[in-house]
Amino acid sequence: MSVNTFGRLFRFTTWGESHGPALGAVVDGCPPGLAIDESVIQPFLDARRPGQSKFTTQRQEPDAVRILSGVFEGKTTGTPISLMIENVDQRSKDYSDVAKAYRPGHADYAYDAKYGFRDYRGGGRSSARETAARVAAGAVARLVIPEVTILAYVSEIGGDAIDMANFDASEIRNNPFFCPDAAAAKRWEKIVDDARLAGSSVGAVVECVATGVPAGWGAPLYAKLDSELASAMMGINAVKGVEIGDGFAAARLTGEQNADPMRPAEGGPAFLANHAGGIAGGISTGQPVVVRVAFKPTSSILTPQQTITPDGQAAEMFTKGRHDPCVGIRGVPVVEAMMALVLADQKLLHRGQVG
Amino acid sequence: MSVNTFGRLFRFTTWGESHGPALGAVVDGCPPGLAIDESVIQPFLDARRPGQSKFTTQRQEPDAVRILSGVFEGKTTGTPISLMIENVDQRSKDYSDVAKAYRPGHADYAYDAKYGFRDYRGGGRSSARETAARVAAGAVARLVIPEVTILAYVSEIGGDAIDMANFDASEIRNNPFFCPDAAAAKRWEKIVDDARLAGSSVGAVVECVATGVPAGWGAPLYAKLDSELASAMMGINAVKGVEIGDGFAAARLTGEQNADPMRPAEGGPAFLANHAGGIAGGISTGQPVVVRVAFKPTSSILTPQQTITPDGQAAEMFTKGRHDPCVGIRGVPVVEAMMALVLADQKLLHRGQVG
Amino acid sequence: MSVNTFGRLFRFTTWGESHGPALGAVVDGCPPGLAIDESVIQPFLDARRPGQSKFTTQRQEPDAVRILSGVFEGKTTGTPISLMIENVDQRSKDYSDVAKAYRPGHADYAYDAKYGFRDYRGGGRSSARETAARVAAGAVARLVIPEVTILAYVSEIGGDAIDMANFDASEIRNNPFFCPDAAAAKRWEKIVDDARLAGSSVGAVVECVATGVPAGWGAPLYAKLDSELASAMMGINAVKGVEIGDGFAAARLTGEQNADPMRPAEGGPAFLANHAGGIAGGISTGQPVVVRVAFKPTSSILTPQQTITPDGQAAEMFTKGRHDPCVGIRGVPVVEAMMALVLADQKLLHRGQVG
Amino acid sequence: MSVNTFGRLFRFTTWGESHGPALGAVVDGCPPGLAIDESVIQPFLDARRPGQSKFTTQRQEPDAVRILSGVFEGKTTGTPISLMIENVDQRSKDYSDVAKAYRPGHADYAYDAKYGFRDYRGGGRSSARETAARVAAGAVARLVIPEVTILAYVSEIGGDAIDMANFDASEIRNNPFFCPDAAAAKRWEKIVDDARLAGSSVGAVVECVATGVPAGWGAPLYAKLDSELASAMMGINAVKGVEIGDGFAAARLTGEQNADPMRPAEGGPAFLANHAGGIAGGISTGQPVVVRVAFKPTSSILTPQQTITPDGQAAEMFTKGRHDPCVGIRGVPVVEAMMALVLADQKLLHRGQVG
Repeated sequence: MSVNTFGRLFRFTTWGESHGPALGAVVDGCPPGLAIDESVIQPFLDARRPGQSKFTTQRQEPDAVRILSGVFEGKTTGTPISLMIENVDQRSKDYSDVAKAYRPGHADYAYDAKYGFRDYRGGGRSSARETAARVAAGAVARLVIPEVTILAYVSEIGGDAIDMANFDASEIRNNPFFCPDAAAAKRWEKIVDDARLAGSSVGAVVECVATGVPAGWGAPLYAKLDSELASAMMGINAVKGVEIGDGFAAARLTGEQNADPMRPAEGGPAFLANHAGGIAGGISTGQPVVVRVAFKPTSSILTPQQTITPDGQAAEMFTKGRHDPCVGIRGVPVVEAMMALVLADQKLLHRGQVG
Repeated sequence: MSVNTFGRLFRFTTWGESHGPALGAVVDGCPPGLAIDESVIQPFLDARRPGQSKFTTQRQEPDAVRILSGVFEGKTTGTPISLMIENVDQRSKDYSDVAKAYRPGHADYAYDAKYGFRDYRGGGRSSARETAARVAAGAVARLVIPEVTILAYVSEIGGDAIDMANFDASEIRNNPFFCPDAAAAKRWEKIVDDARLAGSSVGAVVECVATGVPAGWGAPLYAKLDSELASAMMGINAVKGVEIGDGFAAARLTGEQNADPMRPAEGGPAFLANHAGGIAGGISTGQPVVVRVAFKPTSSILTPQQTITPDGQAAEMFTKGRHDPCVGIRGVPVVEAMMALVLADQKLLHRGQVG
Repeated sequence: MSVNTFGRLFRFTTWGESHGPALGAVVDGCPPGLAIDESVIQPFLDARRPGQSKFTTQRQEPDAVRILSGVFEGKTTGTPISLMIENVDQRSKDYSDVAKAYRPGHADYAYDAKYGFRDYRGGGRSSARETAARVAAGAVARLVIPEVTILAYVSEIGGDAIDMANFDASEIRNNPFFCPDAAAAKRWEKIVDDARLAGSSVGAVVECVATGVPAGWGAPLYAKLDSELASAMMGINAVKGVEIGDGFAAARLTGEQNADPMRPAEGGPAFLANHAGGIAGGISTGQPVVVRVAFKPTSSILTPQQTITPDGQAAEMFTKGRHDPCVGIRGVPVVEAMMALVLADQKLLHRGQVG
Repeated sequence: MSVNTFGRLFRFTTWGESHGPALGAVVDGCPPGLAIDESVIQPFLDARRPGQSKFTTQRQEPDAVRILSGVFEGKTTGTPISLMIENVDQRSKDYSDVAKAYRPGHADYAYDAKYGFRDYRGGGRSSARETAARVAAGAVARLVIPEVTILAYVSEIGGDAIDMANFDASEIRNNPFFCPDAAAAKRWEKIVDDARLAGSSVGAVVECVATGVPAGWGAPLYAKLDSELASAMMGINAVKGVEIGDGFAAARLTGEQNADPMRPAEGGPAFLANHAGGIAGGISTGQPVVVRVAFKPTSSILTPQQTITPDGQAAEMFTKGRHDPCVGIRGVPVVEAMMALVLADQKLLHRGQVG
C-alpha cells in the first residue's frame, strides 16, 4: 500500500518524485484566518535547499513554493492548502545506471520487490527530495502553534559530538552544519570534506527541542505525543533511530537518577530535571520536548559495491550522481518540520476533545 | 484527544484501566477462517503475566482471556474479535496516596493537565496493565502471518549487555529475564535483586527480530514499516528510544561500513550484512527485521521524591504499591505483540494494494 | 474487510453477534468530565428493546448495559468507554435451517460470498441486534451535545403516512410505533397486526429532527454533515434510502420553490423555510437538521421463498424465528443514536479546527 | 474541520477553489502497473465540462488535466498520482456582489458561520467546480476495476421521468441531458430551456448502475458498500437524497413484494429480482449495484431573494454569474466517478482482508 498522508486533524499529503515535473503537499485541516503567503514558507525551504555549500549535494534547485489553494486575501480559509514546488535541475541521464542494478542501501530493490518496477530516476518517490514537501507543510504547521519555538541542530557527525558547554543557538545558522558549537563546526569541516573527497559519507545525529508546548498535548494510548514523534522522525529518509529525552541512556539509569522531581511554581510545576524529554504517559508536561534522531551515512558512495540486477545477476556499482556526503545535515529543517506538524496536529486534537 | 486504535487494515482498539473491572481489545479486520480459541492466546498472556518471579510486580492476575465475538466454530469469521480480561487482584487502597500528589516520572501530572482529573488508582489508563490487551491482540495478529517468526529478548539491563557470542535462543524462556545469554542472566539476578531490595529500579533494552518477512511489505511514505514500528514501540509504557537495525550506531559509521551489499541467490538476493535491519525506503527487504527498544527504569521507587499536589503545594512522596523493579523485562511479550500487529497490518495493506 | 468503527474524533467501535455471549461498543474520544453511569444509557436501550409489544420481535432481552471502563467517580475520564450488553435470550436452535440455505433478502449469501462461511445463528454479525451497541454509544454522544435536542419518529408505515397537521411530539412515546399522529397510530395497529398475522412484513419511513445545532458544524468536502449522516443512516440494517431536508421532493421543485430566504434576527438569520434540512455546503445553518430514512420490510417472512443452498442447490425456505413485522419501528432509537453520534463528532471536529 | 480525503485503501484528496489558479486531486493507494496517461482521464473530464450546450453554465473551461506524479513510462508506480487542472475562465468580477450578501441556498452563510470568512469568488471551495477533481480521480479508479461497467444517466428532470420502456443506453451520449429515453430528452429541452430563459432552475434525479461487481465487496458494518455510496453521493454538490435499489419505494412494499428470490445458476445464484440494488448486509451480491441520487434545483436564480449581509442587515439579491439551470445534468459524470471510487476502494479492501 501507499500511505502519503500524515496527521489526524491537521493532515498533509505529499506527492512527487525526484525527477518528475514537480512535487508538492496538500495541507488539510488548517485553521482559518492565519496570515500566510509564499514568503512565509520560502525561508524554511531555503534552509533545506541543496547546493548551498560544498558539504551538500550540488543539485541546484530554487525550490520556489507556490500556493495554489486554501488562501484568500492573505489568510488561510480553512480549506486545503495546495503547495507546489517545481523540479528544475533534474538530470535524468545521471541515473541511467540505476535502472540496471540495485544501489545497495537504497530503496531500489525494496520498491521493485513491492511494486514490480520503479521510477529509477534519482530514487523516484524514495528520494529525499520529497522532504521539500514536508518542509513546506511544516511551515504552515508553525502558524498553528505560535506559542511554540522549535530549534533543531546537528549534535554529532561521524561520531564527533558537540560539547553542550559550547552550545550557542545563534551559531546554528552561522555554519553549513546547523551546528550550535563553533568548535565542533570547525572540526566537522574536515570530517565531511574528507568524506566528500573520498567519495564516502558519514552519519549524523540531529537533536530537536520544542519549547512553549503547554502541558496536556498528546493522544493516549495509540497517538501519544512520543509515538507520533517517533513515527514522524523514523519516516524521514535515512533515519534509523529516535530517542525522546534521555532515550537509550535512560535504560542505563536507576529510577533515582532518571527522576524528574517537581516543585511548585507559577503556572505549573517547576521540574528539577527533564530526563523524560517533556513527555509523560504520551502527554506533554510543559517542559521542553526533546527528540534525538539518528541519520545513517548516505548510501550513495563512490566505492564500488556488490549488488544484483533486477533479473538476479551479480553486478558491481558505485553511485555517481550528486549526493550529500552527510545527509543528516539537511535533515535539520526536515526534523523541525515534522516536529511542527506533529505538534500542530496534537494541539488541534486536544482542543477538539477537551475544548 | 484519545486515540485507542492502532493499525490501518488490521486494527485493534483497547480499553480498560488498572483497577477497573476488566480490560480488553477489539480486533477488527482480521481475515476469516483462521483457527482460534482462548488457548491460542493464553500462552502469550502467561508470558507477560505479573507475579511469576520476585523480579516482577507481585500483583497476582490470572489474565484469563475470553473471546466474546468474531469466532464461530473455532474459526475467525472476519468480524470484530472482542477479547476481555478481568481484573482480579486490584487493591485500590494501595493507591490512595496517589490521589493526593503526583508521582514524579509517571503520567499523573500530565493526565491531570490534559483532562482536568484522572483515575488515580494504579495509574488508571496509563498503567502498563493495559499492555495485556496488546498482547492478546498480538496473539491474533500472529495467526495472520504464519510465515513470520518473532523473537524478542532483553539484551541489556542496568547497562549490562549480553554477549552475542553467548546467544542461545533456547535460553530465553529458561530465566526470568527473557535473556538469551545464560551468563548475563546470572549477573542480572543480582542487578535486579539489588534494585528490588533497595526499592530502586533499573532500565533495560529489548531487542526483537522478525524472520520470514518477505520483501515488499511497508507503506511508503507515511506508514513505512519502520515508522509504524517506531510508533508501535514508542507507545509502549516506559519506552524512550527505538532503533531499526544499527540505529544510532549507524550514525557513527561511514557509507562503506554501513553498506548491505547483495549477491545473487535463490528467491531473492543474499545480503552480505543487515545494518539496515531488514528495511529500506520503509519497505522490507526480505532480511530479518530488527528493532531495539529502550525502557527507562520504573518510576515507582521507594526513595522519597519532591513533587507537588494537584492544588500546587509542595509535597514529598515515594511509591508504595507493587511494582516491577525492571519494567523492561515484562516488555518482551509486549514488544513481540506490537511487532506482530504491525506486520499483520502491513501484510494486509500490501495484499490490498498490490494483490 | 471489516470496518467496525465510526467517527473521526468522537469514535465508536462495535462488536458482537446475535447469538454470541454479549455485544458491545467502545466509545473513544469522549471529552472528560461528563456525568455518566449506566442509568444514563439504559433508557435509550429500553426504548429499542424487543418484546415490548406484539408489533415487535418476541425475543426477550433485558439489554442491560454495563460500563467497563472510561468512567471514574461518575464522570467520563477522556479514556475509552467500554459498554457491554449480554445476550440472554438467544435460542440457537431456531436458526438451524439458516445454516442449510440462504434467506433471501438477508445478508446470508453475501457474507458467505465474502468470507467463505458465516455465523448463521440469527444472522450473526449482520443481525439488527448489533444496533443495541449503537444505541448505547449514542447515549454517550448525547452528553457531548447538550445544546441539541434529537427527536425521531415513524412518519409512514406500509405506505400510510402521518398527517403533519396532527403532529404531537408528546404522542410519540404513547404508542408502540413512535408515531406522533394519534390517528395514524390507530391505523397502523391494523396494518402491522395484519402483516404479523399473515407472517408478512411492511416497510416504514423514519424522520429525525435535531434542533439546537449551531451554524458551522460540518467538515467539507468529504465529511460533510449531510454525507456523514447519509453514511450513518444507510448503514443501519434494512435502510435503503436517506434524504436531507426535502430530499427527492427537492428534485421536483424549481429554484424559487426550493429557496430558503433569510431575514435578519438575533443570533443569526431567521430562515423563512428549511427545504435544505438545516445543511448548506455540508455545514449546518443553525436551522433544524432534518433527515428521513427508508426502511424496507423485514425480509423474514413466513411465505416460502425460492433460494439456494451454500453448495448451489435449489431450495425453498421460510423464516421461522422471532422477527419484527416492521423493523422500521425499532429503527427509531437507532436513527436518533446515529444522529447524536454524527453531531457529537462534528462538534468536536469543528472545535478542533476552528477553536 | 476540513476533510478533503475520501477512501480507505484507494484514497483521493482534492484541493482548489472555483476562482483560484488551479484545482486538483492526489490519488493514493492506486495499484502499480496500470497503463495511464492524460488521454485516459481527459474524456471523463470532457463529459463533465461546462459550456457544451445552452443547458449548462457558459463558463468556458478546457479542463485539461496534467499528471504530475505517480506515473513512470506510462504506468502507475504505486505512489501518489497528482492530477492538476488549471482554471482558465475565472471571471472574479462576476462575483463581487456575493461578498456583500449571502446567496440563499448556497453555502455562503454556512462557510462564514464556520470559518469566520470565505473566498466568495464563485463559491470558492464550495463550488461544484471541485467535482472536476473527483471526475479525474474517478478515471483512475476505473482502471482498478476493469471488471465493472458503470453507467449513469438522468432519469428525471423537473419531475418528468423517463419511461424505462424507452431505455436505450446508446441514447445517453446523444443528447445534452445524459438521457436514455429519446422522447424524454425531447421534452426536457423545453423544461430546461424554459427554466433557463426564466432565470429559474429545475431539479433532477440521476441513476447509476454498476454491472460486473462480484459478490463479496463491502466492509461491514461501518463502511458497508451502501453506506460508503450514500456518503459519496450525498457529498456531491446539490444532492439531497440517495437511494439504493428500490430505496424509498421499498418502504411501501411488503416483505413478499420486496423479496429477491434466488435460483441456482453457473457462478453464483440467479436472482429473480433486484429490489436490494445489488447489496445485502452492506456487501455486494453480484447483481447490478443500483443507486439513485436527487439533485435539488440550482440555487442561483435570477429572481431576487430575501437575504442578509455578513453584518446582519436585510438585503435582497439575485445571482448573476453563469450557472447551470439544471445542475443535476452535469452531475452524471460525477456520480459515475464516485461510484468508481467507492468500488475501487472496496475491491482493494476486500483483497486486503480476505485475499
